[in-house]
Amino acid sequence: MTQLQAAQAGRLTQVMQTVAREEGRTEEYILQGVAEGTIVIPANINHQNLTPRGIGKGLRTKVNANIGTSTRYPELEYELEKLQAALDAGADAVMDLSTGGDINAARRQVVANCPVPVGTVPIYQCAVRAQAEHGALVQMTADDMFQVVEEQAQDGVDFMTIHCGVTWEAVHRLRQEGRVGDVVSRGGSFMIGWMIHHERENPFYAGYDRLLEIARRYDVTLSLGDGFRPGCLADATDRSQIQELIIMGELVDRARAAGVQAMIEGPGHVPYDQIQANMQLQKRLCHGAPFYVLGPVVTDVAPGYDHITAAIGGTLAATAGADFLCYVTPAEHLGLPDREEVREGVVTARIAAHAADLAKGIPGAWEWDLAMAKARRELDWKKQIALAIDPVKARQLRAAKNSAEEETCTMCGEYCAVKIVCEALGKAR
Amino acid sequence: MTQLQAAQAGRLTQVMQTVAREEGRTEEYILQGVAEGTIVIPANINHQNLTPRGIGKGLRTKVNANIGTSTRYPELEYELEKLQAALDAGADAVMDLSTGGDINAARRQVVANCPVPVGTVPIYQCAVRAQAEHGALVQMTADDMFQVVEEQAQDGVDFMTIHCGVTWEAVHRLRQEGRVGDVVSRGGSFMIGWMIHHERENPFYAGYDRLLEIARRYDVTLSLGDGFRPGCLADATDRSQIQELIIMGELVDRARAAGVQAMIEGPGHVPYDQIQANMQLQKRLCHGAPFYVLGPVVTDVAPGYDHITAAIGGTLAATAGADFLCYVTPAEHLGLPDREEVREGVVTARIAAHAADLAKGIPGAWEWDLAMAKARRELDWKKQIALAIDPVKARQLRAAKNSAEEETCTMCGEYCAVKIVCEALGKAR
Repeated sequence: MTQLQAAQAGRLTQVMQTVAREEGRTEEYILQGVAEGTIVIPANINHQNLTPRGIGKGLRTKVNANIGTSTRYPELEYELEKLQAALDAGADAVMDLSTGGDINAARRQVVANCPVPVGTVPIYQCAVRAQAEHGALVQMTADDMFQVVEEQAQDGVDFMTIHCGVTWEAVHRLRQEGRVGDVVSRGGSFMIGWMIHHERENPFYAGYDRLLEIARRYDVTLSLGDGFRPGCLADATDRSQIQELIIMGELVDRARAAGVQAMIEGPGHVPYDQIQANMQLQKRLCHGAPFYVLGPVVTDVAPGYDHITAAIGGTLAATAGADFLCYVTPAEHLGLPDREEVREGVVTARIAAHAADLAKGIPGAWEWDLAMAKARRELDWKKQIALAIDPVKARQLRAAKNSAEEETCTMCGEYCAVKIVCEALGKAR
Repeated sequence: MTQLQAAQAGRLTQVMQTVAREEGRTEEYILQGVAEGTIVIPANINHQNLTPRGIGKGLRTKVNANIGTSTRYPELEYELEKLQAALDAGADAVMDLSTGGDINAARRQVVANCPVPVGTVPIYQCAVRAQAEHGALVQMTADDMFQVVEEQAQDGVDFMTIHCGVTWEAVHRLRQEGRVGDVVSRGGSFMIGWMIHHERENPFYAGYDRLLEIARRYDVTLSLGDGFRPGCLADATDRSQIQELIIMGELVDRARAAGVQAMIEGPGHVPYDQIQANMQLQKRLCHGAPFYVLGPVVTDVAPGYDHITAAIGGTLAATAGADFLCYVTPAEHLGLPDREEVREGVVTARIAAHAADLAKGIPGAWEWDLAMAKARRELDWKKQIALAIDPVKARQLRAAKNSAEEETCTMCGEYCAVKIVCEALGKAR
């Protein structure tokens, strides 16, 4: 029985109880959210030692980190170091996007070493296999696609990105639109390449019931992938993007009816003034399904700083309804991130998530900032470091710039406003 | 004659013509904005070789970088390196906040080497002098304060932060409010300390006409400093902050009537959901005066990442009306920034400014992103690097992660969506 089926039957599971406790919400709140599909809890029945995370309405905004081998960097060991870096930095979920080396081994190791939900994009492995076995990624069959989904589900993957909305209807709209950047989703490009080559409909759309059957068996949460994610500001919110979103909304209804949890993936590159509309559209068209956004990055011109462009967009997105932020690292648009960039990507996305949680009034968010404010006022550096979202970095910077015994910091030194005003007002600190 | 007096008399100056050209606005637009005070052009008559920058309504959002010596780091040479780093990174203005070593020499060197507007906070030098000569920073006279303002004006400083709104009325409100963080503005703390010690009104408020007379003589733009800037989310938008803003609004009217350009400084630490209201309040209470914001940072808990918390808040602020962003560096709340942090702070603030300019439809903003989108689609890496907001960093990261001849990047390698879809759709790149 999936979490959704249980909730639909009014049955509270241990997984739901854990989420309720971690979120500071009542069990009834979680039960109702899961039942109506506005909350998902990705928890594959085969993922051992999982600490489940709820994603959706009224819950803390969650953060995902992407890792995985590639053709050029096939070493699994380093990816496991990146996994640890992501977990240490506070990631709520990790996606294994491996396309190099032994992909099965990578996924199994990631699942085994990851206490938070693990996601994948099965079509990647499918395409890599076809390339290796037949010399071209389009040389996969529809059966191959479902087989990979099933294999990965058996391995305990909690959520899977599947580009079900990349249909002929949407591809026609893409051609009519005349985009600047066409398609930048890798999975989306595989599907389009396959469809055009074979002149057939997307198997994950045509055979959606088969997909739902597998997902239900393992309680895999479907993350309906946005193959038409805009890859530049000029393509944002265009007809092909919204066409795909409409189709995905319909597929959410079908997933819910089949007892399968589903969320929606979203943009991408979006101008700041279009983000709120995008969030509202997704919530309306997809009947309140949780929204998992990649960014959105708010300008195209900042390679090397796209963790920041994504944090700017992510804060507004999460404030306006997004539930789950995929991290973006400083390496985005330039290459694969290294361990330090993974760490920086996770912390930056967590800052966006937390800033939004403060704005949305999520339980517990305000108290954290208040504790820090008091530590600052008391010039209590130990407490400030302990309360920092990244205590390691805060400690390093403080140590590099100040001697340990100093009460103030080198920015103002003896001319510290906090000290001066406390003295002037005759207050104790 | 100040720029404001000229505009009030309907006279277009060379300075206004330069600004019109750089902004892609008509000369009439600039003339009218300066005349009504919604645009300021800080341009001291003694600042040689200045390339003026307009700040305000309908113009590109500008970015300021703070540099300056301190007691612990009194070396002028390093501050000049930081000045150069800020200029190389694209700062539109630089404030010299020196409090260590030879402050006069520092300021004169900064003005001489800075082609963009230079700002200062004269009360800093005043306090340091009093500390050195009399052993306590409160041991300055009102005359000392005006004298330092005059000296700095003579040296060519284009804009000065003066905390004129820190009056007894506002201090009483602060006491009644019961803040968590009291006062975190250094200049504000000096003023409050002085007022309480001497039991006298703020000389810059009581003697505001004398201040205006000096500012008018050199065309110094007054940047009315927010001494009650909230230092934590819990204190944002409280009665003391808004009381000071009301007083500053009245002082803007008096400045305009005296032919003196004026802008307003703003928060600070502000929850994301209060930023728009803060911007609207400032515009309304201060009759459209340009708004110069420090951040706003949207959470207290991210020391080491406050360039990012400020970019998140700064984008929303600038979209909602702020005209001028003071950079925040990763060193904020921990110590004085080094050269690399200055660079990172400027670029990050420029990203926030540009994201807002895209949202506001500022002339030229959209074209930049469109050029980058086309370069990405063409997999033209040379052009992508050249168009990057920080070409140095983009080039470094690209080189570190990829070999020079590669067409794609290591994130996707041969599985590049752009390539695959172009081929599938039969399009040329």
